[in-house]
Amino acid sequence: MDENIIGLIAGGLTSIAMMPQLIKVIKEKNAEDISVIMLLILISGLSLWVCYGFLKDELPIILSNGFSVLVNLTLLICCFIFKKKC
Amino acid sequence: MDENIIGLIAGGLTSIAMMPQLIKVIKEKNAEDISVIMLLILISGLSLWVCYGFLKDELPIILSNGFSVLVNLTLLICCFIFKKKC
Repeated sequence: MDENIIGLIAGGLTSIAMMPQLIKVIKEKNAEDISVIMLLILISGLSLWVCYGFLKDELPIILSNGFSVLVNLTLLICCFIFKKKC
Repeated sequence: MDENIIGLIAGGLTSIAMMPQLIKVIKEKNAEDISVIMLLILISGLSLWVCYGFLKDELPIILSNGFSVLVNLTLLICCFIFKKKC
């Protein structure tokens, strides 16, 4: 099988797995269980993965980590909007 | 900078970011907030990333996703040990 297809399926699965947390936070308007520091570390790591993907010219890495950056940035924004201690 | 170093830093950061959840679950002996289905989807995705890393012969991808597989397998085992509905 083409390596890129494996990468795209892998990226799809890991992306799906992080959606419930985002949906829960938006639905309950509560981000109390989310740690801002951990989110910042995660977003930094994911952004570096996107750089790595561009340097290696690998679409699956760029797409899946780019999507993860978006999801976690949204979580970060939720943290500030809902203004709970997080 | 060497691409592999960027990849290793990226992998280190995303690995650090997932540790607090594991520590919390083990410390509180409570995995109630963890979804087994999502864990299974995540572990499948991460395992495919490890395959992708081997196919492309990229150490940062193999190491960081391999570590993530271990962390999430431990979370899965915690779910069954603590026997809370999760």
